[in-house]
Amino acid sequence: MDIKKSVLAKARIAREAARALSTTPSRERNEFVGRAAATLVAAKEEILRENQKDVQSAEQQGLTRAFIDRLTLNEKRIEEMAATLREIAGMPDPVNRIAAGWRRPNGLMIEKVTVPIGVIGLVYESRPNVTTDAAGLCIKSANAVILRGGSEALNSNLKICGLLQQVASACHLPEGCVQMIETTDRKAVEELLRLDKYVDVVVPRGGKSLISAVTKMASMPVIKHYEGVCHTYVDSEVDLDLAYRVCFNAKVQRPGTCNAMETLLVHKNVASSFLPKMAKLLEDAGVEIRGCGATRRIVPSALAAKETDWATEYLDLTLSVKIVQSLTDAIEHIQRYGSGHSEAILTKSYDAARRFTQAVDASAVFTNTSTRFNDGYQFGLGAELGISTDKLHVRGPMGLEALVTYKYVVYGDGQVRE
Amino acid sequence: MDIKKSVLAKARIAREAARALSTTPSRERNEFVGRAAATLVAAKEEILRENQKDVQSAEQQGLTRAFIDRLTLNEKRIEEMAATLREIAGMPDPVNRIAAGWRRPNGLMIEKVTVPIGVIGLVYESRPNVTTDAAGLCIKSANAVILRGGSEALNSNLKICGLLQQVASACHLPEGCVQMIETTDRKAVEELLRLDKYVDVVVPRGGKSLISAVTKMASMPVIKHYEGVCHTYVDSEVDLDLAYRVCFNAKVQRPGTCNAMETLLVHKNVASSFLPKMAKLLEDAGVEIRGCGATRRIVPSALAAKETDWATEYLDLTLSVKIVQSLTDAIEHIQRYGSGHSEAILTKSYDAARRFTQAVDASAVFTNTSTRFNDGYQFGLGAELGISTDKLHVRGPMGLEALVTYKYVVYGDGQVRE
Repeated sequence: MDIKKSVLAKARIAREAARALSTTPSRERNEFVGRAAATLVAAKEEILRENQKDVQSAEQQGLTRAFIDRLTLNEKRIEEMAATLREIAGMPDPVNRIAAGWRRPNGLMIEKVTVPIGVIGLVYESRPNVTTDAAGLCIKSANAVILRGGSEALNSNLKICGLLQQVASACHLPEGCVQMIETTDRKAVEELLRLDKYVDVVVPRGGKSLISAVTKMASMPVIKHYEGVCHTYVDSEVDLDLAYRVCFNAKVQRPGTCNAMETLLVHKNVASSFLPKMAKLLEDAGVEIRGCGATRRIVPSALAAKETDWATEYLDLTLSVKIVQSLTDAIEHIQRYGSGHSEAILTKSYDAARRFTQAVDASAVFTNTSTRFNDGYQFGLGAELGISTDKLHVRGPMGLEALVTYKYVVYGDGQVRE
Repeated sequence: MDIKKSVLAKARIAREAARALSTTPSRERNEFVGRAAATLVAAKEEILRENQKDVQSAEQQGLTRAFIDRLTLNEKRIEEMAATLREIAGMPDPVNRIAAGWRRPNGLMIEKVTVPIGVIGLVYESRPNVTTDAAGLCIKSANAVILRGGSEALNSNLKICGLLQQVASACHLPEGCVQMIETTDRKAVEELLRLDKYVDVVVPRGGKSLISAVTKMASMPVIKHYEGVCHTYVDSEVDLDLAYRVCFNAKVQRPGTCNAMETLLVHKNVASSFLPKMAKLLEDAGVEIRGCGATRRIVPSALAAKETDWATEYLDLTLSVKIVQSLTDAIEHIQRYGSGHSEAILTKSYDAARRFTQAVDASAVFTNTSTRFNDGYQFGLGAELGISTDKLHVRGPMGLEALVTYKYVVYGDGQVRE
């Protein structure tokens, strides 16, 4: 009951803060983001002290190396968090922009003006850098934000969020524009997800089961991606050197990310010339290959892929490989097993590139380059709150543009409807 | 169990149809929409015969005049339905448009390309004209559509949908691009709302309770508006003649629509000069006025407004009237009771207009004109599938632009991520 009250109170104050924020000039919001960067750097030691508590506790719980790596802060990472904030502060204001405007025959002037969404709820994994990225992006776009980070990062987030609130107060931003749910009790999230009257959208990040649970429970719209089962298709007409380089990058450069390649599709005509060297390069980098029957005849070291492998996001040094009969087969495989995240074709054929990019429906489709580029920073959109594989509102990297909506403002001089 | 299977079959075939539609040239889609218009007119008599069955049954059930009016077709209305289709056919293609494009420092070319959403489910009231509007808008934008109209319009819709399917087949569009749920059993809608794997978005239209039920049940995103509790605020500095004309229009011209005024807010300084004549004009047109205490002192014929009146969408010749102390009070009243649909200020003050249009958050905010203009056709957007008071994806009239999403298409020549 206390949790219920406390979450409701936060949601209500966030709604009030959002209203006040919506009319703040961009100068004030930029000042917050810029001063938050400076404060982070100045309070480096306090932050690291709190983060150390979280890291120790995670180690005691025996959490994985990858998990602890995402949780851990150090001086360099705090500098990077500050750099991202400074970059956000320097970006153009996404709100109060006249996206379109026109005059009607009856003299009405119609403007389509970008405005903040209102209150954004973020439910995310134990990555303290997301706390500052989210606060920076949301305040820059004049939205209030309610943060709910992973419980393993609680001490780090409490410290960082406290600092952000001090900065907001010093900048005279409305109280409640950046809030955090301090309890690790799951009931708090459940309660938040009921409050569609106060929270306009929820962005869940993390594992598929968490995202799925949030989506089911939420009474408000949700922007998300469940997973990235990303494919690279090596066409019959291909520059082999380019294919080795791009496939290696898509799988190995950072295998734990959602835009890393999980399945390699190879045209049958190029399989015997391409696969042996590709497999060797990948295996030398520690990749385990799970292939179809035809793949295993060419790459004897490959394990046998099961049906479930084609739909699996490994997030690890594991790759499923399938030899396909044609471009059409490759497209059909992607339609069947893909998650609509990032899909690539490597080809020298104009026609194949054109057919693939038109037929494949995903947040980003790549020609002759790595799926790893599906990222707000790589696209030149600045920092991102996440990547969406949803089709409504925003698809792909969620930068500042994803955090605004619009309203029509209509100016007349007494027009009435006939 | 049969209903379940039948809805699933429709959803699956719609997904296949959507895939095929997504690569059709706009010429083929325009041909469908144009021929649908011609077919409607040619089959006028058959349609009217089926519609007559629906109307007779509605009369026997004692449904309201307004309901039967919306259900009834006649020659003129069929001509209007055809005219809307011809207008849709003539509009620019909303898909395969390069909405933005840029080159990155590493040479990657990034295009943001509009693409269809996929499969759209429409759950709507007993208005047969919506059947052709929806089919026209969805096929034009290369989406497959599953229609579920009100049960009272079943015969009309079966006939119209049958004709549309014949046209689709004659135009060689994929089977299943326009489908209708033929049973009036509610379980069919419940089943449809579970199929987020096949249906990308659902648009519910009609009464608040229906929309609310659909939103709660839907596993996929929903675009909607619950209701239009629309305000007009008459400021202290106002052109009285303009105010009489605009307020009268907003309330009386078509009171059953979502963008009609439901509450009139009047600045205290202008109340005694403005309200007596305004009340007389409205009452002469049959409007029942429910006023606050101060209003009733000026307009003795007004009934006493209850607290619930301020939150009520009458959809009828009823108006609540409140005298406010200031512009700030008016804005606060709208924030508290408004539904984010259409809000207007009537003023000669530059400052008041500016403050109102910035502070009021609604799909459309009007200055010195009628809320009745919140409409796709009036905005010059062409036909609309509905009006959204949601904040994500589309807000205000849902024209063709609301029926597309985008994907990034990235062209490289071997770039890899460092």
